[in-house]
Amino acid sequence: MNTVDLPLGVAALAAELAHGELTSEDATRAYLARIAARDPPIRSFIRVLREEALDQARAADARRKTGAGLGLLDGVPIGAKDNIDVAGVPTTGGIALYRDRTAAHDAFVIQRLRAAGAVILGKLNMHEAALGATTANSWFGRCENPHRAGYTPGGSSGGSGAAVAAGFCAGALGTDTLGSVRVPASYCGTAGFKPTFGLVSTRGVLPLSWTLDHVGFLAPCVADLSLLLDACAGFDRESAYARRGPRILVPKRADPANLARLRVGRPADLSAVALEPAVAAAYTRAVAALAARGATIVDVDLSAYDFTRMRREGLLVSEFEAAAIFEKDLAAHPEGFSDELRANLAFGAKQSAMRAAQAYRRLAEVRVLARRVFAAIDVLILPTTPQAAFPFSAPVPADQADLTGLANIVGIPAGSVPFGRNADGLPLSAQVTAPAFEDRLVLDVLATLEQCAS
Amino acid sequence: MNTVDLPLGVAALAAELAHGELTSEDATRAYLARIAARDPPIRSFIRVLREEALDQARAADARRKTGAGLGLLDGVPIGAKDNIDVAGVPTTGGIALYRDRTAAHDAFVIQRLRAAGAVILGKLNMHEAALGATTANSWFGRCENPHRAGYTPGGSSGGSGAAVAAGFCAGALGTDTLGSVRVPASYCGTAGFKPTFGLVSTRGVLPLSWTLDHVGFLAPCVADLSLLLDACAGFDRESAYARRGPRILVPKRADPANLARLRVGRPADLSAVALEPAVAAAYTRAVAALAARGATIVDVDLSAYDFTRMRREGLLVSEFEAAAIFEKDLAAHPEGFSDELRANLAFGAKQSAMRAAQAYRRLAEVRVLARRVFAAIDVLILPTTPQAAFPFSAPVPADQADLTGLANIVGIPAGSVPFGRNADGLPLSAQVTAPAFEDRLVLDVLATLEQCAS
Repeated sequence: MNTVDLPLGVAALAAELAHGELTSEDATRAYLARIAARDPPIRSFIRVLREEALDQARAADARRKTGAGLGLLDGVPIGAKDNIDVAGVPTTGGIALYRDRTAAHDAFVIQRLRAAGAVILGKLNMHEAALGATTANSWFGRCENPHRAGYTPGGSSGGSGAAVAAGFCAGALGTDTLGSVRVPASYCGTAGFKPTFGLVSTRGVLPLSWTLDHVGFLAPCVADLSLLLDACAGFDRESAYARRGPRILVPKRADPANLARLRVGRPADLSAVALEPAVAAAYTRAVAALAARGATIVDVDLSAYDFTRMRREGLLVSEFEAAAIFEKDLAAHPEGFSDELRANLAFGAKQSAMRAAQAYRRLAEVRVLARRVFAAIDVLILPTTPQAAFPFSAPVPADQADLTGLANIVGIPAGSVPFGRNADGLPLSAQVTAPAFEDRLVLDVLATLEQCAS
Repeated sequence: MNTVDLPLGVAALAAELAHGELTSEDATRAYLARIAARDPPIRSFIRVLREEALDQARAADARRKTGAGLGLLDGVPIGAKDNIDVAGVPTTGGIALYRDRTAAHDAFVIQRLRAAGAVILGKLNMHEAALGATTANSWFGRCENPHRAGYTPGGSSGGSGAAVAAGFCAGALGTDTLGSVRVPASYCGTAGFKPTFGLVSTRGVLPLSWTLDHVGFLAPCVADLSLLLDACAGFDRESAYARRGPRILVPKRADPANLARLRVGRPADLSAVALEPAVAAAYTRAVAALAARGATIVDVDLSAYDFTRMRREGLLVSEFEAAAIFEKDLAAHPEGFSDELRANLAFGAKQSAMRAAQAYRRLAEVRVLARRVFAAIDVLILPTTPQAAFPFSAPVPADQADLTGLANIVGIPAGSVPFGRNADGLPLSAQVTAPAFEDRLVLDVLATLEQCAS
């Protein structure tokens, strides 16, 4: 039973479950078997919820037999980054101090997944406190990229990216403060999506930055992301950061092969970000692919946006907000935090309120730039990361999130889709973003790129 | 000509101008004459724009003769608080250092007023930097309450309140960070309104707090506020803090005398704010008046909202944001700021980024409370200020903005209307607030209260 031939991804598995070709219990056992066999060197899971998941799977199978209350994701096993509360098990946030801190309640997004019938398969490894993008976690193990041993899966949702790429779950939840869903999606060759700020509630997620945190999704295919978004989106009136969006998101484009009337912006000059040559070439091909499907390519002036400076500004906000969030625990139990994390929090802690106010002001001003840019285009296409996955033995590039931070700062939807490989065989990717609440449009364009990439 | 019988307020004057009973030049000269005769002891104006205003008035009269391009406010003289840029004249912000700092451009809201045909009559006195609520300005003169010499008009838009109450202009612009439009409206016996955050752009306004500042209006009647809102509202894509609201605000209620189906919330317990007995009595009468018009009065639980603590939290945000805004000028020219303002800015400057992040977090959390409260009601009625105007010789009460800060923190529309007088003959008031973008509903309920008060 453990050798069942699992389809790839949320949508495909949901379809097979619907057609009765597979039971949720079979699928769950198959994922569990894979994890047991192949995760030890990858270390994508911090905790596998074996018995709970099997119980949920059997319940899904029972529901299916009676035809009662089937959700979008009924019986589909999903992994959750370990900063997202699942009732009854610890939410570590990748921090040693929280190793045994059991969550009393499900996070809002876990409630939504359960309401859609999903099976919660386990808790996924992450960069400590989500503040970093390698997932070299000194407490829960260095998570490896399934494409190459000794290479980073990216981060901070590195366990989510690795688990999806390794086929350990149908899809995964991640969180994204400056790129923490899209960076591992890019390095691990999965699809990844961060919705409009406030569209998917962060309530019950261990915060890093109240003002920049988003919950997002990683999965093999764009169609999976769309199902996950449908299941998880919804106004949470109990969240201070939830926003009430339009009741119905932009409907799906009828024909992803025909992008006529779609205006795709690309920066007229991206030289401020040092793209690896293979990344630059993949990006050029991605733009050309959209043009070939009928899209109008528009060169947009992004010279007023300093990718590096604004990534640093977003990082500073994360550092001082995190310093406030962890202040008491850090003072009481410094040994429960790594030296790296302590140093980053200390940097945040020494900033002044005036510096903080200026940082928020600078983030807010980017919204004006984004409005100007999106006045002339429907979507913006960017590379996701300036580089492919790199070995843990190499220095960590400072610019990992230079290209992803914009969408967090403005609060707009953004996703990444695999787009080719470099000479070394490692995945490359393309990123799409659009104005707030145009989440469906971003997914549609990502789906087109997905077709072109394969 | 200077003794012309001026109608009271924006709407009445606009109607008389429309009917040809008066020219804009006549009206403008009449206001100028009143100011010349009676403002010297009141000190509501920092600068009267006599010649510019007369030019604009004559232009309005000329437009009316040809019937070309008449706006909502064509020929109506309006005063502007002196933190709002009017091209070609200084924007002092009530600060000595800026006495001669000439604005190059009109603020967005002045552009909107001009587009509606308004005559910009002059720049109005204010509490220094808008950080305080007495308008005892040590540089530009202590502004007096027209109802009683030696009494404060409130603040920070004290000049706006005094000028409107004294009949020196048809209406006035103010700004409101924690109550700076509604407090002087309350003390001076005028109507006052602060729209939804982002609905009227603050671009071109000297900031105090980027995250709490609003432009608002003071005028004799609620109908005037409505006209001013219609003229000034509009999405400003160049403002970092503008929000795109619904294209059409909630339409006017057909019958202000019939409030059936309107759920009016009042706090079940307001004992945390020490209301003067006359204020409490007027508030009770205002609630009863709405009930008599058919509204359903709903007791709402506001116990989770600490009026005093949150006013302090908002003040802290204002102090450290203002410290960032004035940092360079204060360092270079400390003598251009009063001791009082320097002390407040120094308090802001010594806060940490962590404290700032916590303050923003606490402000954000109030949104959750507001959503809960407004789930069961359409509007919330509160007193505007815990006290009537007080003499400059008395200590300044700390709680002046306890009841107004909520609407700034949540970013919701709020207005104040005169409602009776105390035993000493000084004006009392009632305040109404509602969810974001329900600006018209707030004005409608204020209009009902206005009818009941007279």
